[in-house]
Amino acid sequence: MTGLALFICLPHTIPMNHDFFTIISREAFEDLLRTFAPLPTEKVPLDNAAGRILGESLQAAHDWPLSDRSCMDGYALDARDAFGASEQNPVYMDCVGAPNVDANPDMEIAPGQCVRIATGGSLPEGADSVVMVEHTVSMDDWDEGTATGTIEIRKAAAPGLNVMRKGEDAKSGGVALAAGVELGFREIGLGAALGFTEMTVFSRARVGIVSTGDELVGVDQEPRVGQVRDVNSYTLAFSARRAGALVRTYGIVPDDIAGLTAAVKLAVSENDLVLLSGGSSIGVRDLTVQAVEAQPDSEILAHGVAISPGKPTILGRVGDTPIVGLPGQVASAQVVMFCLVVPFIRYLQGQEHAFDVAKRPVRQAVLARNVPSRQGREDFVRVRLEERFGQLPLAHPVLGKSGLLRTLIESQGLTVIPADAEGAYKDAMVDVWII
Amino acid sequence: MTGLALFICLPHTIPMNHDFFTIISREAFEDLLRTFAPLPTEKVPLDNAAGRILGESLQAAHDWPLSDRSCMDGYALDARDAFGASEQNPVYMDCVGAPNVDANPDMEIAPGQCVRIATGGSLPEGADSVVMVEHTVSMDDWDEGTATGTIEIRKAAAPGLNVMRKGEDAKSGGVALAAGVELGFREIGLGAALGFTEMTVFSRARVGIVSTGDELVGVDQEPRVGQVRDVNSYTLAFSARRAGALVRTYGIVPDDIAGLTAAVKLAVSENDLVLLSGGSSIGVRDLTVQAVEAQPDSEILAHGVAISPGKPTILGRVGDTPIVGLPGQVASAQVVMFCLVVPFIRYLQGQEHAFDVAKRPVRQAVLARNVPSRQGREDFVRVRLEERFGQLPLAHPVLGKSGLLRTLIESQGLTVIPADAEGAYKDAMVDVWII
Repeated sequence: MTGLALFICLPHTIPMNHDFFTIISREAFEDLLRTFAPLPTEKVPLDNAAGRILGESLQAAHDWPLSDRSCMDGYALDARDAFGASEQNPVYMDCVGAPNVDANPDMEIAPGQCVRIATGGSLPEGADSVVMVEHTVSMDDWDEGTATGTIEIRKAAAPGLNVMRKGEDAKSGGVALAAGVELGFREIGLGAALGFTEMTVFSRARVGIVSTGDELVGVDQEPRVGQVRDVNSYTLAFSARRAGALVRTYGIVPDDIAGLTAAVKLAVSENDLVLLSGGSSIGVRDLTVQAVEAQPDSEILAHGVAISPGKPTILGRVGDTPIVGLPGQVASAQVVMFCLVVPFIRYLQGQEHAFDVAKRPVRQAVLARNVPSRQGREDFVRVRLEERFGQLPLAHPVLGKSGLLRTLIESQGLTVIPADAEGAYKDAMVDVWII
Repeated sequence: MTGLALFICLPHTIPMNHDFFTIISREAFEDLLRTFAPLPTEKVPLDNAAGRILGESLQAAHDWPLSDRSCMDGYALDARDAFGASEQNPVYMDCVGAPNVDANPDMEIAPGQCVRIATGGSLPEGADSVVMVEHTVSMDDWDEGTATGTIEIRKAAAPGLNVMRKGEDAKSGGVALAAGVELGFREIGLGAALGFTEMTVFSRARVGIVSTGDELVGVDQEPRVGQVRDVNSYTLAFSARRAGALVRTYGIVPDDIAGLTAAVKLAVSENDLVLLSGGSSIGVRDLTVQAVEAQPDSEILAHGVAISPGKPTILGRVGDTPIVGLPGQVASAQVVMFCLVVPFIRYLQGQEHAFDVAKRPVRQAVLARNVPSRQGREDFVRVRLEERFGQLPLAHPVLGKSGLLRTLIESQGLTVIPADAEGAYKDAMVDVWII
């Protein structure tokens, strides 16, 4: 009867006297998670590096751009020739040609001359700026075939105008991308531009998921009253994969010490992180602890965390492999997953700021009613957002009935009541963590 | 000299007189995209359905929950027995046992009796509510082995308290999940609970990417001055994969009509959508149009869209396969990707609200300086966010130099200046679309 999940409808006057194990704060739990080493790095082709964390800084082998290049379609010229030019006071210049975009323009222009240039084209010697074609008019002597003739310049130039400078993106020998950066489309693009066909990135975490519980049956089976299908194997796998992990599921293990010990042994041997779902619910919790402690070189590191839902979360290790025991209830397990496990997976995969709560994707909203909470634990309150025209959305707390899937489906996010608060009031502005 | 990309530093007084092709609005372009049919549906295992759009509504084969179940660890009883109970005025009840969580409790309790129940356990006949264990005390006659004895109830019950009702998640024969819903962890969870081992979902889009441009060399090659490595094949693939597409790249095709025609033919035969990158830049644009028109049953549907950057975007079709020609410049191509192509991929994959701009992930910020814009086109201004403690972040526009990758890396999002605005002022509150 110990260590039961506590829920947000609890009044504040009842003492928490059922805890036979020690509850630690979320921050202390995270500190324990951070005692595990991030995964090793590996070399992967550029195409497979997307979304990964860079394991080694990349040094540019050459300047990029290789030369001064135009950002615009227009005319490359010496800015001094078009100083002060305007629609009222245009200047006239002699266009001497239009090098192909891929040409190495080893030509040089003289004062009063310009060349037509395409976006991306390299500037000839003597040019330091580009006037956009929209600010020019070709005169009667213009010959399109040779791109020569008189061009009226209607806008002032300045050195560097519309020019990407040689080495402005990356300097030869300089750090183009620093270790620890997450490789989004921008970084992949810069890596491609600099010729990195491979990148050294942190490995993806192999996550094993073991479901326990005598009441569980497979998704392909018909439950009778008292039984439920194994939902967590799917929802936890979903979230782990979203975090970039490689997931292996181990099916449903009955609540007995022999079966659970064997499953833990197998899962530890094949993964970087093992999740035991259901293994922290009443009765099963002791079995989980025993199944971990039955392994050689094993240890229980934490036995309860001051979050709700999710309090009976267990952290252990077998050798260097972390094991997290999650509540069996789907919604509670997902809160632990979002709050602790997904950040942990990201941490293992090299993400330095994985536990930074400021990085959670949030939307501001106005609380639709009072939410009581209890000091000493962080409450994750599911909320449904009601959009309002021209105003912040209303956040309706979805209280109680955390076992229902529909309330989960109807909620869009979590509002976090800090451990030092006794709740939040109606009309308060809150951050809703979109999940 | 026609149809050049226009950029946001343009003054408003210069007439847009270089357009020899017709520019249509973003909305009109989207209307054309919507003339293509979404992809067919397919049956996939539940595990592979994550993130997909449900193609057929799912009917529950049975009620879920199967029976009234407890949301809490506690005591199941008839609420009338504990009506008005409180710490000051507890009531005393006779606990007659503790069925296993997976038991079908075909027992019945009499008035004055209760059973100990675990979270998820089914309520016996005669019980309609659960009082949490934290609101109870076991008396001296308690026998833990049989879970029998006297329990002091210190909190009032009401019918349904802490009970998930039979059928509350899903009614037998009712629609549990409606066609068109995106399958997140919640929906996958409900699907698992209801026993759907497979789901009918919209197919993933096969997207072919063809890079064109004589100045391009492969990522594994050394460019000389005037040449650039093919960045778009990587960045466009990244964004398409992020949207769930299956990407095939066709390498670099030189700017000649024979090569481009052959590449378009091959890409059309193997994909649901073909992207031609660089094919809308000056000079190459006509080739792209010719390469599309050289295919049987082909048509150019749009030739320019009133967005900046991204104006020279082309839309065509070969048979029923759409072809989008994107600007060659990396940053411009990405704006077209985010603004038009990714929503289009999502639309093809069954997402009904794919083009809804209200669904873009945004953060509010304060503009750090004036941003001029021109009426008649939507301006996508890259901004760098400067975080400020206790205030909205400052959005610094990253103007010009759109060819640089570093400015792209340093910007976190896009601020959209609507087509009917002449710009946005310093200190204005703006939405930053996080990309």
